[in-house]
Amino acid sequence: MNGLHLSAEFHGCTGEPTWLTDAQRLHAGCVQVVRAAGLQAVGAVFHPFPASATGQPGGVTGVVLLAESHLALHTWPELAAVTLDVYVCNRSGDHSAQARQVMAALERLFQPARVEQRAVMRGAIAAGSGPG
Amino acid sequence: MNGLHLSAEFHGCTGEPTWLTDAQRLHAGCVQVVRAAGLQAVGAVFHPFPASATGQPGGVTGVVLLAESHLALHTWPELAAVTLDVYVCNRSGDHSAQARQVMAALERLFQPARVEQRAVMRGAIAAGSGPG
Repeated sequence: MNGLHLSAEFHGCTGEPTWLTDAQRLHAGCVQVVRAAGLQAVGAVFHPFPASATGQPGGVTGVVLLAESHLALHTWPELAAVTLDVYVCNRSGDHSAQARQVMAALERLFQPARVEQRAVMRGAIAAGSGPG
Repeated sequence: MNGLHLSAEFHGCTGEPTWLTDAQRLHAGCVQVVRAAGLQAVGAVFHPFPASATGQPGGVTGVVLLAESHLALHTWPELAAVTLDVYVCNRSGDHSAQARQVMAALERLFQPARVEQRAVMRGAIAAGSGPG
């Protein structure tokens, strides 16, 4: 169950605005990013939030479940911002490079002006039959 | 988009073993825990992993999407362990207490002998129409 958990906040995103508001597009984009990194999607759920009273488009909350753990995103179109988590366990090998590849691909997609990021190595016990 | 992200590893879980292996039960239990804490579930996906070659039950990976961000869990029955994330944003009020309540409820459910936990206050900018 040990593995790398990257979490980030993307501020001032200058990528295509629909990545922040179109749940279906973001869902497809995330699954593609995960696959391109060599990780295995085993499920996903994306939820669009309604537009604000002033007509501003709502954000999207979504998760791709991985055989190696998960990718989670929450978008904030009114702030041009995204919060992201990529967590991979290392049961079937070290997936740290793939996690960094997913985060880098999402950075290219959202094109943030500023990124806050942290990395935590989680767990301490090796091996098992769970995710990973 | 600012808010509290709790992450934890539960080791040596002595709660009912099916919480670690029954995706449907864990799904229902997590939604109940979230609701009891006053948070709003807007979607969920839970995935059971297959049994090992030696017949040991597989783990479960699951996420409950919240109007306030997400709850994610990965179980490791062969290690009697769980990794958990509870992330809440504070757009519609400070949800830190609810996040701690969810983590405490899951600790009562899994009954770990040992808990590793960390808390991070994420983001810096207030307000918006996204999750929260």
